[in-house]
Amino acid sequence: MNFSIIRYLCGQVLRFESAFMILSLVVAFIYGEYGSALIFSGTILLMLALSFLLSAKKPANTSFYAKEGVVAVSLSWIMISFFGAIPFFASGAIPSIVDSLFESVSGFTTTGASILTEVESLDKSILFWRSFTHWIGGMGVLVFVMAILPMSGADPLHLMRAESPGPTTQKLVPKARETAKILYTIYIGMTFLEIIFLLAGGMSLYDSVVHTFGTAGTGGFSVKNASIGAYDSVYFEVVITVFMILFGVNFSAYFLLLAGKFKRFITFEELRVYLGIIVVAIIVIVINTTGLVYQNMGDSLRYSSFQVASIMTTTGFTTANFNEWPTLSRFVLVFLMFIGASAGSTGGGIKVSRYIIMLKTLRREAMHILHPQAVKIIKLDTMPVPEEVIRGTGIFMLTFLGITAVSILLVSMNGFSMETSASAVAACINNIGPGLGIVAPVGNYADFTVFSKIVLFLNMLVGRLEVYPMLLLISPAIWHKKA
Amino acid sequence: MNFSIIRYLCGQVLRFESAFMILSLVVAFIYGEYGSALIFSGTILLMLALSFLLSAKKPANTSFYAKEGVVAVSLSWIMISFFGAIPFFASGAIPSIVDSLFESVSGFTTTGASILTEVESLDKSILFWRSFTHWIGGMGVLVFVMAILPMSGADPLHLMRAESPGPTTQKLVPKARETAKILYTIYIGMTFLEIIFLLAGGMSLYDSVVHTFGTAGTGGFSVKNASIGAYDSVYFEVVITVFMILFGVNFSAYFLLLAGKFKRFITFEELRVYLGIIVVAIIVIVINTTGLVYQNMGDSLRYSSFQVASIMTTTGFTTANFNEWPTLSRFVLVFLMFIGASAGSTGGGIKVSRYIIMLKTLRREAMHILHPQAVKIIKLDTMPVPEEVIRGTGIFMLTFLGITAVSILLVSMNGFSMETSASAVAACINNIGPGLGIVAPVGNYADFTVFSKIVLFLNMLVGRLEVYPMLLLISPAIWHKKA
Repeated sequence: MNFSIIRYLCGQVLRFESAFMILSLVVAFIYGEYGSALIFSGTILLMLALSFLLSAKKPANTSFYAKEGVVAVSLSWIMISFFGAIPFFASGAIPSIVDSLFESVSGFTTTGASILTEVESLDKSILFWRSFTHWIGGMGVLVFVMAILPMSGADPLHLMRAESPGPTTQKLVPKARETAKILYTIYIGMTFLEIIFLLAGGMSLYDSVVHTFGTAGTGGFSVKNASIGAYDSVYFEVVITVFMILFGVNFSAYFLLLAGKFKRFITFEELRVYLGIIVVAIIVIVINTTGLVYQNMGDSLRYSSFQVASIMTTTGFTTANFNEWPTLSRFVLVFLMFIGASAGSTGGGIKVSRYIIMLKTLRREAMHILHPQAVKIIKLDTMPVPEEVIRGTGIFMLTFLGITAVSILLVSMNGFSMETSASAVAACINNIGPGLGIVAPVGNYADFTVFSKIVLFLNMLVGRLEVYPMLLLISPAIWHKKA
Repeated sequence: MNFSIIRYLCGQVLRFESAFMILSLVVAFIYGEYGSALIFSGTILLMLALSFLLSAKKPANTSFYAKEGVVAVSLSWIMISFFGAIPFFASGAIPSIVDSLFESVSGFTTTGASILTEVESLDKSILFWRSFTHWIGGMGVLVFVMAILPMSGADPLHLMRAESPGPTTQKLVPKARETAKILYTIYIGMTFLEIIFLLAGGMSLYDSVVHTFGTAGTGGFSVKNASIGAYDSVYFEVVITVFMILFGVNFSAYFLLLAGKFKRFITFEELRVYLGIIVVAIIVIVINTTGLVYQNMGDSLRYSSFQVASIMTTTGFTTANFNEWPTLSRFVLVFLMFIGASAGSTGGGIKVSRYIIMLKTLRREAMHILHPQAVKIIKLDTMPVPEEVIRGTGIFMLTFLGITAVSILLVSMNGFSMETSASAVAACINNIGPGLGIVAPVGNYADFTVFSKIVLFLNMLVGRLEVYPMLLLISPAIWHKKA
């Protein structure tokens, strides 16, 4: 293990986090929140000092393999969450350390689960930072660092593999660093586009920016207690629904579009299945709720399409208390949580492409019983999927579900209802936010024990980093050998 | 597809079913239930007539491969369930055809889920048949037919693979037919042993026999409305707990024991993990319920050990209404449902050995990230597990969970609670019987719609036959090609 390069990278990540926090400091000055401004300044200085200590000495050995990538990613995420929590705690916005950490992890992992019972009275700069963590975490911190930082020797592909969601990591262009730059450009471009659309509808600049952060990162923190429902505006709902869906798309699809490869864009399998699931889920919920929860089909369509887009993309904004929907609709939402967004998007969950790969493998497996001699290669978008990826995908999904089951057992020690316990874990590990029962859209995570909160924020990290980095971090094998 | 051999086999299976039903006819005469006797006689004659039509002409072509095995198994199981339902419906014990079919499928698949709200008033011979279906289904019908019926050409291994539970089908001795005979001998021996133990405790012969059928097949139908709880006897509970656990063990372990291979018996991995899970689950529930549900640890141990053994082995007998246990304990039971018993036992669920294989594969997968060059073979009981089995195991588990999810959506159209909908599917697909909510130990499946009941009994078949036979039966590929 090349510890010096990991140390160096962690230092760089801290430097970038401090740079991001400067924006919150500016917001604090704009709104005259001098107490918060002081705290942001202090945190920034602390991070810069530590960053200097960690990365002053350039690593002599720049060898960088998958295991270094995995450790660098998990340590960086724990570190940014820790320093990101300081403003919440130090400003008094969140009086408990564990709660502050919960909120910070929830932000960076783009979960959006909150322990706050009321947000509208908090400092605007603190809420700005809270939403900004979604935007930072959405695209990945280390990939960002690597995209900007020229560093010979270290192959950014190992970092991208460890940090980017999905079964495979495609390079759009031959160089991983260039790929990262393209992805970030698309991300920033779409972010500006959403802000403009929200401003055009009459939303204030501040509200537009924070809600765009929540949408772009598929996070879900809002500055309103009633989330997007507070505006009661069809225009805002439509804009945010569309952008939630757009940010849940595999960004490679946009690259195809930008590169003028329309035919490949249209036949992009994951995109079609992703949109298909959204449409079917909306239809089922509309049929199930019309007459029962909503008077007419129009209302039903309005609330169900927003909620389906929000849950499927793992954003977590709400306009309806879906906890009061009938059993079928609630189960549709819970299962959507476990499907999640597309690979290579900012969304969480297991990802649509993994399900596609597994369904194709199931068909092959069944055919294998009928024709044992036949050898069939599984393809995704005309590209063959390596057997290694197929095997890894199955194990990944089962491990993900296994960690979910164990976490449900741990969280159910609280004694809350089965719905609350199971949906809290589902909403955290899939990086959504709201669940059912006491964690429903009108509720929050405040009443869980410290132990449960720790389990839940570890779930968020496991979900965001897709299991292996967190799992390997606690594996003795990674620390023992100095190979 | 060699349809003539499938036709012939179905005829043979019917002949065996009619032979089994004769025992119920005898019981009807003993108790002077002449109405039921008439119905049993009629059903037996009907089956014999049809059996004659189907198997009078011996198939000229005896080629028999995996696909013939799969089709023969699924068709046979649907057929025996159909004819097994006739006595319930014709006797008036169950006035609805779908309900009679539900009860019959539930019996043969060793589920033990019932639509009956009251059983004690029914004819003893009808209840005898109901419990006897557990015993017949427990060990497999086709394997039984093959074990007894000498048939050149047809390789019984394909039938065993399709009918026997578990990721691999081991032959204990070189010939598959001899293996089947050994397994049946152990099965019958243990059945007599349990009857003797129950008789020794003062249970009536009739009650001893039917409850042994329920235990041996890990079924769970009782002749008492309050199941085993009706006796309120620690002795009976201990005997049944021990036998439930014994019937949930991989029968290969008993073969090792009988063959004097003690060292291999003791190191049998699946057995150790299976017993370990039972012990841990009991400890968790004892800690969770003592003081809260039960006054003292003794009571808590008594009820939790019976329920854990009953659920883990997928039997479904009850002595406590675990629906009133705290959230943690109920989740422990629900997750035990999905673990299930050992491969090669009479129990259902996903099976312990599949989890062992997947955990080992996960460890390998994680190590692969650290040491991409290393090639590691996964072993179970010192035997290497073929890569094909590993891949198949992952797909099997995911498909099983996928079918569970879709079924939950279908069943939740009833509008019952999430707990009821999810646990009903879990209890049926894992072949357990009782669940939570309205299908709790004090409840039953009577109130579901016809559509839900059909979904649920299809779940039972999918669970008992382990997905592929039922899945392939509806695949067009199996019917189109005449290869």
